[in-house]
Amino acid sequence: GYAEIGVFGGDDVDTQFHNDIVINVNMSGSTDNGLEFGAKVQFDDTNGSSNINGWPRYDDEAVWVSGSFGKVTLGETDGAYDWALSEIYMGTSLFDDHSTHAGAYWFTGADGWYDNQVMRYEYSFGDFAAGISAEMDDTGTGDTIMAIGVKWSGNMGGVDLGVGLGYQSANSMDAVGLSLSAAMANGVNVTAGYADDEFWGGEWWGLGVGYTAGALLVQANYGEWDYGDSGWGLVANYDLGGGAVAMFGYGSSSSGSGGSFNGNGDDTWSAGLGLSF
Amino acid sequence: GYAEIGVFGGDDVDTQFHNDIVINVNMSGSTDNGLEFGAKVQFDDTNGSSNINGWPRYDDEAVWVSGSFGKVTLGETDGAYDWALSEIYMGTSLFDDHSTHAGAYWFTGADGWYDNQVMRYEYSFGDFAAGISAEMDDTGTGDTIMAIGVKWSGNMGGVDLGVGLGYQSANSMDAVGLSLSAAMANGVNVTAGYADDEFWGGEWWGLGVGYTAGALLVQANYGEWDYGDSGWGLVANYDLGGGAVAMFGYGSSSSGSGGSFNGNGDDTWSAGLGLSF
Amino acid sequence: GYAEIGVFGGDDVDTQFHNDIVINVNMSGSTDNGLEFGAKVQFDDTNGSSNINGWPRYDDEAVWVSGSFGKVTLGETDGAYDWALSEIYMGTSLFDDHSTHAGAYWFTGADGWYDNQVMRYEYSFGDFAAGISAEMDDTGTGDTIMAIGVKWSGNMGGVDLGVGLGYQSANSMDAVGLSLSAAMANGVNVTAGYADDEFWGGEWWGLGVGYTAGALLVQANYGEWDYGDSGWGLVANYDLGGGAVAMFGYGSSSSGSGGSFNGNGDDTWSAGLGLSF
Repeated sequence: GYAEIGVFGGDDVDTQFHNDIVINVNMSGSTDNGLEFGAKVQFDDTNGSSNINGWPRYDDEAVWVSGSFGKVTLGETDGAYDWALSEIYMGTSLFDDHSTHAGAYWFTGADGWYDNQVMRYEYSFGDFAAGISAEMDDTGTGDTIMAIGVKWSGNMGGVDLGVGLGYQSANSMDAVGLSLSAAMANGVNVTAGYADDEFWGGEWWGLGVGYTAGALLVQANYGEWDYGDSGWGLVANYDLGGGAVAMFGYGSSSSGSGGSFNGNGDDTWSAGLGLSF
Repeated sequence: GYAEIGVFGGDDVDTQFHNDIVINVNMSGSTDNGLEFGAKVQFDDTNGSSNINGWPRYDDEAVWVSGSFGKVTLGETDGAYDWALSEIYMGTSLFDDHSTHAGAYWFTGADGWYDNQVMRYEYSFGDFAAGISAEMDDTGTGDTIMAIGVKWSGNMGGVDLGVGLGYQSANSMDAVGLSLSAAMANGVNVTAGYADDEFWGGEWWGLGVGYTAGALLVQANYGEWDYGDSGWGLVANYDLGGGAVAMFGYGSSSSGSGGSFNGNGDDTWSAGLGLSF
Repeated sequence: GYAEIGVFGGDDVDTQFHNDIVINVNMSGSTDNGLEFGAKVQFDDTNGSSNINGWPRYDDEAVWVSGSFGKVTLGETDGAYDWALSEIYMGTSLFDDHSTHAGAYWFTGADGWYDNQVMRYEYSFGDFAAGISAEMDDTGTGDTIMAIGVKWSGNMGGVDLGVGLGYQSANSMDAVGLSLSAAMANGVNVTAGYADDEFWGGEWWGLGVGYTAGALLVQANYGEWDYGDSGWGLVANYDLGGGAVAMFGYGSSSSGSGGSFNGNGDDTWSAGLGLSF
């Protein structure tokens, strides 16, 4: 399980208390001849952080089977485009203020346009991994959304590098993306991303610079869309041990389209504890 | 928990992916003087297999107490009619195609006509067991649904036999049913059922012939209603060990009333894995 | 988890079966430097005791952090008024008949008037504990509901005593309450309460006399409101061990405002088993 306690605010909301509890159910097993399988589902409430009780909701429901042939995942899982590409964001905050400003992007592509039932096959060989995925329109109207992706990770001269490349296509639209990350031994992290995603509205690039030292993590990021929106974010996390993390997030949006994706306005922030059990 | 991953189809649906997760909660205990008690409830999602996320739903909620006096169960549980009678179907499939065709029947009787809160008392003596049950109309309008049932199981000449007999009655309607099963040492199974169930529309009979060998189970079945609908089904299960079962099901319906009870048409099928955790 | 099985009735309902299952999720942990934290949430179904299946619902969701500084709780938790005051009721019954008659009161005050997201801080010193709490109106319209409370418990001449005092205020209304309890060595318990709670409609007082001997607990209580409603209740619990408790409850209401708070009428009762797992 995971719980949060804290305070949040922004230009479009009153500064207020926040608490939230998510329960994760993870199950796994293996067959007599070594096939592994598992399933996961989350219970999350639907009422946001400021309502009485609320209804639990299934989220993130997926089932997987893996073996020497690779791994097949079916359900609410990343398509191969999103799977191959790494977000530029580090750390967490109560309202993801740092990663939901108007200049943010998560390599989502067309995932979830239909029923969010994605079938992804992936295979790893050494430092490389490749995946393909499909999401069908069960009404039979639209194209099946197809995606492919490759990623590589390795160490060069003491720097941990990661590169991802993805492509997704359906209904005469497509998305192509590239992600890069470099983690240096001195604690400095640089992340960069580029995408031309017609499903999300255009061309985007983003950059993040972070630093980790012991229990501390800080990162600043900037991103912009060619349709004009941009934004920057800042996050600080301090690991208190035992599953408790102190979290602060801030996001600033320059946009004609309504501020942060988290709904709290152009300048949003949150501070509190994230508790994992 | 239980999860499924696979593909299904039929004349009334597009062939499509399927995944599903059910979480079972089982609790039990015993008092100082040896009374045992327990409760069970399932979380299942309500959105079928082709929707984003969805809402969990309580299902199969029942509480029981047992001791030397027998066992009392209250909640969503079989009335004594259904409890005494064994379905003719073996094996499982993603959409129960083999056991939901238009000629299928499950000895349901009137169970669930009111609030599905059934109180059943059962008592075992040697190879015999008997039960009685009641489901009340909480609005006070209809009769209480009463049922009685007896079952016997034993071995004759190396054949495992089972016989069930049940009767249910309420509001000037009734149901009477008989079920038979014979499992031979060579792996052949024969099941047969007969009912005259006014709650479900008439007289029904069904027959199943199955075969088990090691991890494999196959069965064919046929059933028909005197109002004209009939159908046959085929199922194959292969136990991969560790809780994983490969499953295939097919159902064919001859009916004026809309095909399989699973909603997928006259000819329906599914193939995939069933995963128990 | 917790499950119930039994029968209930009253002038406004048919006598009928009852079962119910509640699942409690409790999580806790501690940081490296000794801060403790936890979260709790209940799954309960929303359909009452006489419907098919039903939807689970989050209830009682709260997150807390404690250390040498005291304890902070955020979520669906008692405000400091309710936290400091002890209900006059002992024991449990399926429909809380004994504690929901028209003369009943639970020191609720204004808790839950807004979003039921209460932030409470409490601190203990010896036999004393004090708390303050706030519940904000996230729309920014109403006053923040503030409350303070103190409680003391101790032993005088072989009698376990408890005293609570609370005050709550918002939007030109307030509530003040006092609770007393005395548990004598011979098993007799006396509880008393007084409140002037403008959020609930006026002045109330109540008295309970109980007796415990081994596994048995019985209590009678009476309460009345200055707006005219009054009622009395009776409860008997017998602990069968292993988590099973036999429970009987009765409530009688004299009221112009519709009988028991449990909705079953002026004279209501229930009998059954409460099962903790």
